[in-house]
Amino acid sequence: MKLYDGGRAPNPRRVRIYLAEKGLDVPLEPVDLGALAHKSPEYTAINPLQRLPALQLDDGTVLTESIAICRYFERLHPEPPLFGIGAKEAAVIEMWERRIEFHLLGPVSHIFRNSHPAMKAMEVPQVPAWADANRPRVQDFLALLDGELRNRRYVAGDRYTVADITGLVAVDFMKPAKLAVPETLTHLKRWHADVSARPSAQA
Amino acid sequence: MKLYDGGRAPNPRRVRIYLAEKGLDVPLEPVDLGALAHKSPEYTAINPLQRLPALQLDDGTVLTESIAICRYFERLHPEPPLFGIGAKEAAVIEMWERRIEFHLLGPVSHIFRNSHPAMKAMEVPQVPAWADANRPRVQDFLALLDGELRNRRYVAGDRYTVADITGLVAVDFMKPAKLAVPETLTHLKRWHADVSARPSAQA
Repeated sequence: MKLYDGGRAPNPRRVRIYLAEKGLDVPLEPVDLGALAHKSPEYTAINPLQRLPALQLDDGTVLTESIAICRYFERLHPEPPLFGIGAKEAAVIEMWERRIEFHLLGPVSHIFRNSHPAMKAMEVPQVPAWADANRPRVQDFLALLDGELRNRRYVAGDRYTVADITGLVAVDFMKPAKLAVPETLTHLKRWHADVSARPSAQA
Repeated sequence: MKLYDGGRAPNPRRVRIYLAEKGLDVPLEPVDLGALAHKSPEYTAINPLQRLPALQLDDGTVLTESIAICRYFERLHPEPPLFGIGAKEAAVIEMWERRIEFHLLGPVSHIFRNSHPAMKAMEVPQVPAWADANRPRVQDFLALLDGELRNRRYVAGDRYTVADITGLVAVDFMKPAKLAVPETLTHLKRWHADVSARPSAQA
């Protein structure tokens, strides 16, 4: 198998962090997003949606969508569990993972794509008013997450999970989107320092 | 347990269709979205994100996010399998479910929320230019999906899955968003007629 990888972009990083946490070594095939290589005919044949990452299995099957790829590895390599054990814990983790996708990673991505000058060629047309509409949503969700992290160590409970991976990547993606975590959100900052200190954060 | 339900809105409908396909009967607690009851203090205590649906378990745990709720039931009631069997099939289904969420249900929802007069009080501010930016994305994805459905009966393979549920709800949500499936997309139309004819589509 090989993993088509996109360097610094947030979604490819989610899968690399996941693999590092699991101790899995998967051959990477870099695709140069800056050179728009993900829009080439060669890569479009791999993923017609022209997004990264994509995992190609030995039988030729192509899997896309970061969490679908991670969950595929989870089934093959259950330890350590990053998607939870049992129906209820797994549902709580998936709930938080999706809340972060829809209320933090999504809005941050919309802001980045619709306001950053470097995205002019990729996001056509850029809609600066949509970036602006998402700014308060990011702040609202960060405050909510800070309140949750007052009472527990990680996003979905007392153990590090895939919800922390999406959370870390989303918060780190705030920097290129020119957004900052308010200093007052001390629980969120404690959590972010904690998950950033894990070796996987370098992946 | 009880399921906080939101009537005609797309996400609550996804869970109701899923439950109908599984033959599961869960007590519903209606929340009147039109009267903004999802923003009441009572419901905010259930789901601080003020979204529907939400599943409250007998121990008080609240699960939100439609797919997390469905997957919770899938673990308790595996038959018939709507999330696939085995790592690869499950990943292909999750890939398609998420592709439809991000490239169809999401854009249709953005168009509805940012252009429909009835959403003025809910989507503040409405950004009509963002609705316009999403219109071609919807058409591009519908064309891609039509091409996929040329070669197989359902969205993710030869069996009906949760990816078909999200697909059906997304296509039906195009009507209030004032969007139409082009007549030329005959494979998509065949699939839509097929999944719409199932009794679960009435849920």
